[in-house]
Amino acid sequence: MDLNEPTKNSNTIFSGRIINLRIDDVVLPNGKVAKREIVEHGGGVSILAINKDGKIIMVKQYRKPAEKVLLEIPAGKLNIGEKPDECAKRELMEETGYIAKELKHLFSFYPSPGFSTEVLHLYLANDLEKGTPHTDPDEFLNVYEYSVDEIKEMIENGLIEDAKTLIALLYYIK
Amino acid sequence: MDLNEPTKNSNTIFSGRIINLRIDDVVLPNGKVAKREIVEHGGGVSILAINKDGKIIMVKQYRKPAEKVLLEIPAGKLNIGEKPDECAKRELMEETGYIAKELKHLFSFYPSPGFSTEVLHLYLANDLEKGTPHTDPDEFLNVYEYSVDEIKEMIENGLIEDAKTLIALLYYIK
Repeated sequence: MDLNEPTKNSNTIFSGRIINLRIDDVVLPNGKVAKREIVEHGGGVSILAINKDGKIIMVKQYRKPAEKVLLEIPAGKLNIGEKPDECAKRELMEETGYIAKELKHLFSFYPSPGFSTEVLHLYLANDLEKGTPHTDPDEFLNVYEYSVDEIKEMIENGLIEDAKTLIALLYYIK
Repeated sequence: MDLNEPTKNSNTIFSGRIINLRIDDVVLPNGKVAKREIVEHGGGVSILAINKDGKIIMVKQYRKPAEKVLLEIPAGKLNIGEKPDECAKRELMEETGYIAKELKHLFSFYPSPGFSTEVLHLYLANDLEKGTPHTDPDEFLNVYEYSVDEIKEMIENGLIEDAKTLIALLYYIK
């Protein structure tokens, strides 16, 4: 069965700073027309950064949609025209102070492909030099480092609640 | 540092079938006020379902935001008032025809906590009985079964592009 859903019509409802919202009328495989609510997002990167002691660099950050602080790997949005690997180096430096001399691309994935265009590129960084973090003036986060055993225990106990972080950590401990 | 971001004001921009959009004015730790664009989503479930041969049940589905067919584990949205484990049984049955006699909750996570309230509950189902799938009239998907070796190869080759599916598969092969 051909699963494609060509667009018949598209309406932008909202244009924001981080996301836009549009409604597409699409043609289903059975010929019927259906509406798709689509959040447009410019995408971003996340970094599985391992320090010289084999510990994983993580950040705690308040996430308003979740109304709580989440423990995550460093991550951030792509600037317009920015290459993902440059973005990964920049975000790691800004959020944690670590300079990654080399990055390896692991996966790219859609966090919520049912309604969002967001793609996240995950990088592995394990040749790190310590510099000084300089977060955006309106960005607030705390930096932590965890051993593989601590990570395993946190995953087991449901303390890792962020999808990109679960992907990175499950990949690393596998 | 206290990372909380209390809400000063909240405006609903759009109320849809799958998502709502609201803009919150929040108070940052430095006392400044910032805007947060927040997509409200009722959450859902996904199911890591293993058949009697140890193969993993997967579905291919067109994802309009990605403009392509993605290979995913079975998943679906929670109906209002529905318990996640009941939703997991229902979605697995509807999408693949498999009846899960027992489910084990693995993780719950936020796919996109930067802008979306969506929470996904991941279940493991490995005592399956074969029934008949009955997808929604406007839902189109194809069902596949993959061995662990095939899964490993697909992950390695970047063919798994859906976050919840990467989480489930990396957990299973670890």
